[in-house]
Amino acid sequence: MIAWSAFSVTDAKADDAKPDAMPTAASQCLSCHGTNGNPALKDVPILLGQQPLYLENAIRAYQEGRRTGGQALVMHEIVKDLSDVDIKAIATWFGGTQ
Amino acid sequence: MIAWSAFSVTDAKADDAKPDAMPTAASQCLSCHGTNGNPALKDVPILLGQQPLYLENAIRAYQEGRRTGGQALVMHEIVKDLSDVDIKAIATWFGGTQ
Repeated sequence: MIAWSAFSVTDAKADDAKPDAMPTAASQCLSCHGTNGNPALKDVPILLGQQPLYLENAIRAYQEGRRTGGQALVMHEIVKDLSDVDIKAIATWFGGTQ
Repeated sequence: MIAWSAFSVTDAKADDAKPDAMPTAASQCLSCHGTNGNPALKDVPILLGQQPLYLENAIRAYQEGRRTGGQALVMHEIVKDLSDVDIKAIATWFGGTQ
């Protein structure tokens, strides 16, 4: 039973689980979005607790130039070289369930 | 002092305060974003507690065609006729502090 329980915990973490440590790629987000995804700037969205799939899609939209105006030029520069793995890691770091 | 305190409370509500009742314009948001701004759909952003100024800017970006792809076509239709007053009311309803 102990082994089964341990497996269940591991399995539950496989989906939207927050990583144990901040992914390196997320470090560049902190100056605007706050150290925990809760920004001081009023026009910057809170990432903390946001749905990971939405965050993934939003990052890809910035990468692909589907969001323009406002801070989109900044975002485009920040996210342009992120890999799919980076994007998913960032999304689950800020939005994943603990 | 009592009168001064009451004024202070009123004054504090004038900025990002959540309205006492849901603005009519917000009713069309609920089917996707959830009755309280916390959606069941995984690719739809949580609005509950998001920063009002960010929400305002995001609605205007959809109105002005500065967000495309994904659900942007839906959003464009939903928000195209909103007034500035509607936009601010929606933003503070979902994101305003109580």
